[in-house]
Amino acid sequence: MRVLRSVGREWRRVSAEPDVWRRALPVDPDLGSLPTPAQITPARFGRVVRVSPFGPTAPTAAPSPLAPAGTAEGGPPAPDAEPRPVDRPRAVYRLRRLLLGPALASTALARERMRKLVALPVLSADALSSVAYGPEAMLAVLVLAGTAGLGYSIPIAATIVFLMLAIGVSYRQTIRAYPRGGGSYIVASDNLGLFPGLAAAAGLMTDYILTVAVSISAGVAAITSAVPSLASSNVLIGVLAILVLLACNLRGIRQAGAIFAAPTYAFVIAMLALIVAGLVDAAGRDFHTVPHPPLNATEGLGILLVMRAFASGATAMTGIEAISNAVPAFKPVEWRNARTTLSWMVGLLVVLFAGIIALVHFSGILPRSQETVLSQLAHLSFGSGPMYVFTQAATAAVLLLAANTAFNDFPRVLSLLARDDHAPRLFARMGDRLAFSNGIILLSVAAGLVYVAFDGRTASLIPLYAVGVFLAFTLSQAGMVVHWWRLRDRHWRKSLLFNATGSLLSAIVLITAGITKFTEGAWVALVAVALFLVVTTRIRRHYDTVAAALRLQRHAIELPHHTITPRAVVPPKGVEGVDGSPASRELRDPRAFDETERARGAEEAEEVPEEIRHLSLVPIQTLDRAGMRALAYAASLQQPVLVIHVSTGAAEAERFRDQWLLWGDHLPLQELVSPYRAVIAPLVNYIEALHHQRPDLTLTVILPEIVVSQRRYSALHSRTAPRLRRALRPLRKVVVTTVPFHV
Amino acid sequence: MRVLRSVGREWRRVSAEPDVWRRALPVDPDLGSLPTPAQITPARFGRVVRVSPFGPTAPTAAPSPLAPAGTAEGGPPAPDAEPRPVDRPRAVYRLRRLLLGPALASTALARERMRKLVALPVLSADALSSVAYGPEAMLAVLVLAGTAGLGYSIPIAATIVFLMLAIGVSYRQTIRAYPRGGGSYIVASDNLGLFPGLAAAAGLMTDYILTVAVSISAGVAAITSAVPSLASSNVLIGVLAILVLLACNLRGIRQAGAIFAAPTYAFVIAMLALIVAGLVDAAGRDFHTVPHPPLNATEGLGILLVMRAFASGATAMTGIEAISNAVPAFKPVEWRNARTTLSWMVGLLVVLFAGIIALVHFSGILPRSQETVLSQLAHLSFGSGPMYVFTQAATAAVLLLAANTAFNDFPRVLSLLARDDHAPRLFARMGDRLAFSNGIILLSVAAGLVYVAFDGRTASLIPLYAVGVFLAFTLSQAGMVVHWWRLRDRHWRKSLLFNATGSLLSAIVLITAGITKFTEGAWVALVAVALFLVVTTRIRRHYDTVAAALRLQRHAIELPHHTITPRAVVPPKGVEGVDGSPASRELRDPRAFDETERARGAEEAEEVPEEIRHLSLVPIQTLDRAGMRALAYAASLQQPVLVIHVSTGAAEAERFRDQWLLWGDHLPLQELVSPYRAVIAPLVNYIEALHHQRPDLTLTVILPEIVVSQRRYSALHSRTAPRLRRALRPLRKVVVTTVPFHV
Repeated sequence: MRVLRSVGREWRRVSAEPDVWRRALPVDPDLGSLPTPAQITPARFGRVVRVSPFGPTAPTAAPSPLAPAGTAEGGPPAPDAEPRPVDRPRAVYRLRRLLLGPALASTALARERMRKLVALPVLSADALSSVAYGPEAMLAVLVLAGTAGLGYSIPIAATIVFLMLAIGVSYRQTIRAYPRGGGSYIVASDNLGLFPGLAAAAGLMTDYILTVAVSISAGVAAITSAVPSLASSNVLIGVLAILVLLACNLRGIRQAGAIFAAPTYAFVIAMLALIVAGLVDAAGRDFHTVPHPPLNATEGLGILLVMRAFASGATAMTGIEAISNAVPAFKPVEWRNARTTLSWMVGLLVVLFAGIIALVHFSGILPRSQETVLSQLAHLSFGSGPMYVFTQAATAAVLLLAANTAFNDFPRVLSLLARDDHAPRLFARMGDRLAFSNGIILLSVAAGLVYVAFDGRTASLIPLYAVGVFLAFTLSQAGMVVHWWRLRDRHWRKSLLFNATGSLLSAIVLITAGITKFTEGAWVALVAVALFLVVTTRIRRHYDTVAAALRLQRHAIELPHHTITPRAVVPPKGVEGVDGSPASRELRDPRAFDETERARGAEEAEEVPEEIRHLSLVPIQTLDRAGMRALAYAASLQQPVLVIHVSTGAAEAERFRDQWLLWGDHLPLQELVSPYRAVIAPLVNYIEALHHQRPDLTLTVILPEIVVSQRRYSALHSRTAPRLRRALRPLRKVVVTTVPFHV
Repeated sequence: MRVLRSVGREWRRVSAEPDVWRRALPVDPDLGSLPTPAQITPARFGRVVRVSPFGPTAPTAAPSPLAPAGTAEGGPPAPDAEPRPVDRPRAVYRLRRLLLGPALASTALARERMRKLVALPVLSADALSSVAYGPEAMLAVLVLAGTAGLGYSIPIAATIVFLMLAIGVSYRQTIRAYPRGGGSYIVASDNLGLFPGLAAAAGLMTDYILTVAVSISAGVAAITSAVPSLASSNVLIGVLAILVLLACNLRGIRQAGAIFAAPTYAFVIAMLALIVAGLVDAAGRDFHTVPHPPLNATEGLGILLVMRAFASGATAMTGIEAISNAVPAFKPVEWRNARTTLSWMVGLLVVLFAGIIALVHFSGILPRSQETVLSQLAHLSFGSGPMYVFTQAATAAVLLLAANTAFNDFPRVLSLLARDDHAPRLFARMGDRLAFSNGIILLSVAAGLVYVAFDGRTASLIPLYAVGVFLAFTLSQAGMVVHWWRLRDRHWRKSLLFNATGSLLSAIVLITAGITKFTEGAWVALVAVALFLVVTTRIRRHYDTVAAALRLQRHAIELPHHTITPRAVVPPKGVEGVDGSPASRELRDPRAFDETERARGAEEAEEVPEEIRHLSLVPIQTLDRAGMRALAYAASLQQPVLVIHVSTGAAEAERFRDQWLLWGDHLPLQELVSPYRAVIAPLVNYIEALHHQRPDLTLTVILPEIVVSQRRYSALHSRTAPRLRRALRPLRKVVVTTVPFHV
């Protein structure tokens, strides 16, 4: 701030008439009746106005993202209401509007508050749907050890239930501490620091990608179990489902609402019916287990196998953190409602998980590759009638909804990272449908690739899953432990204990999963997390470097003999060596020091208008209208001009010189001869030489460029201007100006 | 010329001090000791000099393209001697130099003269190698009609031999008439006009593409006949061969020389030996034919089949025109030596063709898909010994050489077309190895695609072949008929008769091939020719439009009340409606007329410096160093400036306004609010509005652009500057200036 003001003073001092530009301004200040900031009223609808000064004034887009399905075709000309994206071909733009609907103004962003009965299904779809693959994944491991292995299903399931309760209680503490939403990234970076925060984010990101892949694959399995003829095209169905989710989310689908509650309730009802029917059935047999077909043990029953089964079964807990992220979406008192909903969710999760494990135990069903365990159970209890179809449809629907949850959360976390300069900034930008479009596309591509790479098989994807989830759990709850230790409010001891237990248990699952499933695929997740950490840190470092370079500095040029003004440069954290410290600099040879300082002075002079010394260079090949226009433009700037002509041979040089003299030789001309017929390289070499000889000059290269209206003709013209522009980009103090000539 | 001078006078009149730029020029005129045109001596080596003023002065590259194989690694630092192609990454550039050798100066272009004994093999490789597939293609059709069909082989062959002689005699006339080289394109466009010339070129181009594809496929067949285990990877071998030809020709391989004579002579020797051995063998059997295995006729023997066989066999004549194109490459007296060589070539062609047909007839050999007819004949006569291997190797080598001929001719014809504005101009440019690199690459890609699309099977490619060749033959010789009719020198009647016969016979073959093989693949060639005609005409029309637009015009602005000066616009041939004729314009409403004229005046004013009224626009997002530099640059031009800031919300707008006031509000600021969060579109809309309101202003949009040194970081920055530049390209009188800020 202080620097900005001093830079401003500098401008006033050096520019003799600061108002020369203002007075000479030839433009009607009310051009196109654009609103000045004063005219903008901060009302909900009035805050934004159309910018395009042509065309009719249209109303701003409807505030509800679900409403405008019809307006794109029928209603008022909403598509015109937005600024035309000029850098896209027209057809692409139309298709985009047709698929995604009209652009939405920033004010259209509505924040919805959910009742508990709506919040429960919406936020717990991810967690509850996990019982569709968690128990099966656990049994699929145990079955490798034969009948003896299956005997362990009850104790392992009991452990997982205990884990669910413990982590549920742990997240109740998070809700109380972070009533404005406590995602793992926020909690971990708040309390543990930058790196654990990034690690939690890495865990979350892989988790979301795999949530999409696993949910879609389990959902497709629910469908193919019911309709086995579709089994061969399961990958295709999954990819289509991802594309549908992509399109809906790019359109900016609402996250909450009655239709999003339906699948979860339907799934819960179906599961409860299944469990009740199965238990009644088992009660009829006096709870004797049905003997399953003879099993050959392919692996010995050891502690490793049991732990693998535990880690697989623990995937049934994924999504348990969703409510703690979304506290502000509840009606007041937010945190109290959120806690109640969390308790309900954990309760339902435990009931469904335990019930399914018990049913499998009593019915003697085994995991099979062609049909899911849930489908087998439903067949057993409901036959193949409408109730079976309902169960399968509800399962597929809730899994699709769970995948959709990841489509909401992944871009949000990524946008937080981008806001903190840990991810490319384009992920922090909202698209014209008020969705983080770039994050949504990234998630779709990543999930699609993972899904296709693993052939859409749930069993192959599960080993990758647990690592990311439990990494985020562990760090989030460890962060809460630190939080309570620092805060020490009324109930801090109890909360700290709960969170410590949750963190410890999560860490145990994380280590178990990481070790026992390393070769099965967990290494992929670990590599992804490590890569994520490296990339995000480097991105942050780059942004810090750029920010340091862009920071305004006081000008040294006003002082005689290049005396150094103390600089207000505070190197940002984590960035070393961007600017050598003044102390170390003063130890060097004073002459060299002076050199450096002079170069720096010349560099800084570019930021004060009166200190810029111009030389315009006009590379020209022929004296046609395009070239003449560039020459006239250069001359009209009333700065020194040098025209450069590159000829590939003596004959061409002579012809050009004749034309030049005929025209009158109004400007200084430099002729270059290119022995290798290249045009770009000699020009760049010459400009580079000029720059080295006179580093104080700002060179403006004025290029004539022929612009053809139809893109297909552009291949017919030598693209000298763009190529030269690209070649000149690395040169300092070389400004490139393109004078277009439209054909 | 007159216009140029008048434009020059205009400049002198309107610019008060024409020497203001010259006097103010701050640059050392002898910068980097660049040569002025006066210093350039027109000696062979001295005509070109290095342009790069840095680095040691290295000798110009060796004049012989064959020599520098070693210099790229060992010798003097030749790669430094050329200007560094700055717009390519360094690694790509190094690889390029390693593969292709150092750049060659224009003076290195040496024109070789050939003795007849060298010219014969070099120029007839294409024609003579045709006997490796022509006879086989003919027999492959006849065999469909069984034994009865094969009986027609002798009469058809006799017809083809007659054709060879007739067309050979016809081309002797062309050599006499065009001692400077008479390619089909030149002869046809000289005598028949533009469109027949283009049609001949179209025929030639498809011919060259197919010469490569067919020669490579026949060459690979010669190899796989000898080594059947390679048969399965024939496509791969062919593609590799095309890549080798591509690399050699990009390097700028010599066309003539002893090593190019060897394969043809070896092939001729092998064939003559084969024919003699076969005839001796047949003589031992008193010229009784060996009965071939029983044959089932799969097609009836009709006139259509015979004509198809004839058209296939006629492919043995391809390449017969090569000598007439290359007359200047002979030693003096060029045309006489060329004619002698042509006679020799036709003689050899007839002997080889007739001999092979006779051998097949006597030996009872049938075409087979696994082994070529030549290979079967060689096996029969020579067994599998060294003589057999020699025959096959010579056949493969001569076919490769024939393909190489196309690599020389295709880019040359294309460069002629480009010179006449019928093809993109980049095909007329010589690369840094003095080869028409772009044409060579186009040929490789086209031939490679055709080759792969037809699975490298000669039999499938043959039907496409004849159409292009005989189209060029017909048009070229029809052109000669017109030539003689116009010239009427001493022997004109005889020459006209010969050429008329040749043209007629070629036309018959063309029609035969076009009809009988239409469904087999000739339609592809016909479509290609038609497409070629459409594309070349449109390219020419586009270039004409551009040229008309670029032509200098007298300025109308000097006269009061926009009186019209007579324009020196002569619309080029073939272009209508580019500029409405003055007569029709004067009939219109005078007011509308005045309007048009005023707009035209404003347009033309851009070509005289004093008439340009400037307004600089600086779109700026943040007041950092990059933005400040752009502001300083804009202010230093001493022209009216307007700064534009686009904010996506009220909060951002306020924050920017605070900073702006803190800085001192030195320049006029226009704030825009973008309701849809887009930055580019509101800016472009605003600039468009400004342009419509004040069409007399030349708007200079000055963009700050952050340039990162490593390309992988560029994704981290919003590419606003390039996107805005692209969006502003279609706007007239909008000049875009990029002020770089290097991080």
